[in-house]
Amino acid sequence: MSSWENYLNENKKKFISELLEFLRIPSISALPAHAGDVQRAAQWVEARLKKAGVESVRILPTGGHPVVYGDWLHAPGKPTVLIYGHFDTQPADPLNLWDSPPFEPVIKDGRIYARGASDNKGNLFIPLTVAESMIKSGGKLPINVKFLFEGQEEIGSPQLQPFIAAHKDLLSCDMVFSADGGQWSEEHPGLVMGTRGLAAVFLDVQGPDHDLHSGTFGGAVANPIHALVEILASLHDHEGRITVEGFYERVRPLTAEEKAEMARIPYDEAEYLSEPGSVSVFGEPGFSTYERTWARPTLEINGIWGGFQGEGLKTVLPSTAHAKISCRLVADQDPGQIAELVAKHIEKAAPPGVKVTIGRRGSGSFPYLIPSDHRGLKIAASVLKDLYRKEPYRIRSGGTIPANAMFLEHLKAYTIVFGFGLEDERLHSPNEFFRLSSFERGQKAYGMLLERLGEVG
Amino acid sequence: MSSWENYLNENKKKFISELLEFLRIPSISALPAHAGDVQRAAQWVEARLKKAGVESVRILPTGGHPVVYGDWLHAPGKPTVLIYGHFDTQPADPLNLWDSPPFEPVIKDGRIYARGASDNKGNLFIPLTVAESMIKSGGKLPINVKFLFEGQEEIGSPQLQPFIAAHKDLLSCDMVFSADGGQWSEEHPGLVMGTRGLAAVFLDVQGPDHDLHSGTFGGAVANPIHALVEILASLHDHEGRITVEGFYERVRPLTAEEKAEMARIPYDEAEYLSEPGSVSVFGEPGFSTYERTWARPTLEINGIWGGFQGEGLKTVLPSTAHAKISCRLVADQDPGQIAELVAKHIEKAAPPGVKVTIGRRGSGSFPYLIPSDHRGLKIAASVLKDLYRKEPYRIRSGGTIPANAMFLEHLKAYTIVFGFGLEDERLHSPNEFFRLSSFERGQKAYGMLLERLGEVG
Repeated sequence: MSSWENYLNENKKKFISELLEFLRIPSISALPAHAGDVQRAAQWVEARLKKAGVESVRILPTGGHPVVYGDWLHAPGKPTVLIYGHFDTQPADPLNLWDSPPFEPVIKDGRIYARGASDNKGNLFIPLTVAESMIKSGGKLPINVKFLFEGQEEIGSPQLQPFIAAHKDLLSCDMVFSADGGQWSEEHPGLVMGTRGLAAVFLDVQGPDHDLHSGTFGGAVANPIHALVEILASLHDHEGRITVEGFYERVRPLTAEEKAEMARIPYDEAEYLSEPGSVSVFGEPGFSTYERTWARPTLEINGIWGGFQGEGLKTVLPSTAHAKISCRLVADQDPGQIAELVAKHIEKAAPPGVKVTIGRRGSGSFPYLIPSDHRGLKIAASVLKDLYRKEPYRIRSGGTIPANAMFLEHLKAYTIVFGFGLEDERLHSPNEFFRLSSFERGQKAYGMLLERLGEVG
Repeated sequence: MSSWENYLNENKKKFISELLEFLRIPSISALPAHAGDVQRAAQWVEARLKKAGVESVRILPTGGHPVVYGDWLHAPGKPTVLIYGHFDTQPADPLNLWDSPPFEPVIKDGRIYARGASDNKGNLFIPLTVAESMIKSGGKLPINVKFLFEGQEEIGSPQLQPFIAAHKDLLSCDMVFSADGGQWSEEHPGLVMGTRGLAAVFLDVQGPDHDLHSGTFGGAVANPIHALVEILASLHDHEGRITVEGFYERVRPLTAEEKAEMARIPYDEAEYLSEPGSVSVFGEPGFSTYERTWARPTLEINGIWGGFQGEGLKTVLPSTAHAKISCRLVADQDPGQIAELVAKHIEKAAPPGVKVTIGRRGSGSFPYLIPSDHRGLKIAASVLKDLYRKEPYRIRSGGTIPANAMFLEHLKAYTIVFGFGLEDERLHSPNEFFRLSSFERGQKAYGMLLERLGEVG
């Protein structure tokens, strides 16, 4: 057993008790009343990094909740990795559904129950303890490491992009490892190859300048709801394909190898449907469910409203109708261009008799896809394979992790998600927990990862 | 000058002061707190009918606000007409927009300002004063007259249908004259030939059983808003025609004569559009605006909602989406059949992956169209022509007056709208008023009408 593993073993109890201490800070980034707690969590992380032997440790302002930075850069000729995580948490309500108070962590049956246990304090703490173990037991790390822990992930990291852009030199690295993520299952590892991007368009249709009596004017002037549904229905065909011209143009097709990779991942349709509770799956023809959610873009109407929504009937010809649309994008789509194409389609589809206004929301997020032969990814895969004795599934996320694209854009570095959460750990829900076994396995994994990264030049 | 005209002249001030008294009763049928005032208005009408010499006067219960009945049936061999009106009013809010309190009538520049002045107390009072004038001055009416004044018109007369059905003998008549209506303009008379009926269908689409993350599931399960807009968009073509199979089947086509009648009614598109404030007219190709609103049916989406409607973006794949649809019907469409056809269309149009539930609201209302050679209509036309020195426009109403169809169904009697309101009198709005000139002209018109009805056998 290596010396860092011995150190981890000897300090097991201490690390767990420190994690409980960390979890007692209610660092809810969404609630202004907890801004001081987010700051306290930053101070806790700062102090803990210093204690671990990490250098240049400091809290840096972002304009919102702060970030904590630290580094250890004494491995010349070796790669530099940035390790990312977040010390803020989701809100804890509804409180009455928790079996124990969310910020009074409890260990039960090998699990730590607390808000933030899995997402992300438990996972964030793993590489920190590994760094300490290596520094304290061997005096050094096998590679150069920078830590970037932030306090606003749960509110969408609004100030992270300008922060990264403004600190390119400080954060420069060869690759990023994100401690914010999980594995496929307790038995089977997974590696996230890609996340989808996002583009959003808002649509307002104005008919008459006030609500009208549908008897008096019905049939003679355009109903904005009719115009809206005509426009919206034209965005897909009956089978679910997006009909916006050029929408799929830049979509990188799945290679035969990628298709085969996805096909070997277990998929049980009844089990899959049990979560959404839909009557069936439905989507773009010619693609599997994983392909649809991981490798194909969507155009989703997130909300629609207009006219009378109350009880009973109100025979109104309404003045306005509205919709919110967002698209999940895949490599190599560009959110700005997609918003433009959707807007153009809407303009063309708009029937006469109404005014159509199209709004954009922010600049969107780029999709992210790591090359399958990325050096860091291959090393991460070898570590996971040795630990789980199984080849990791190469999965993707249908969701959007803006940080991945930000690191790529500003630092020219790909991100490998290397976290040890599991799907059943009630992230964002009452009774969130983290497995002590995952904590230990994660420590071993990060130790092996740093070692193997140090073996290459 | 006939004796009833002399009587009207001599009692002019008294009648106006009585009308002001009537208008002081805040008989708002929609507000439970005013139920006692509706009852007081019924008592006022009851007493006033008795004083006029009308017989069998009584307040009759309906289960809701009452009706007042009275008759004078001493003209054997002469026709029997039922005169309809309502003594309830709309609510008066917003009160701050009134120049004088709504239930403290004020006479200014030849107009009585008060809630209910035109709709319908002023108009209701006209035939009552005429009956008194004839009875008091000549001892009799030229025909048999029944009065039916109700107290729930402004809330849609929910109990009138069962009331009429249960009192067929009491109310039996040759024709109905409704004092609830108006003329084309101060200079030009109009006769309402038809009103549109109504059928309503509610539509609920269920996708997943709870709102989903649009990243995780977007693309793999059906979005109920997509299904809803696809269904709704299929109900019309791009030009505004209704595409529901069989929808137009029973629509009575306009005759060349009816088209010519409508074509001679003044129409200024810019002026017409100033009220709705729409950018242009829009509707079924091949028909004029009057034809579209008077003689063609509609299918109108009155309300739509689903998913996120708040500020900003929420990338949700929503659980449900909803719409309320109502159709304005024309002769000879049947509301039950139309609801059935729309429901069938929706079922056929529904895409896979969602559950669609279709609801019906009540039994609908039948459209109404009086034959153009109806005897009473012709007499009413002759009266208006002599009074205004202009041939009345034969207009229709795009709205729904359920009473018309009810009288036809239960009493086998057509209704002729014979009222003297004008479009600018702010019905249902602050500062409602009624012209004293209309009051006088209406009295003359009702007197002539009763006389001429008595001249035929």
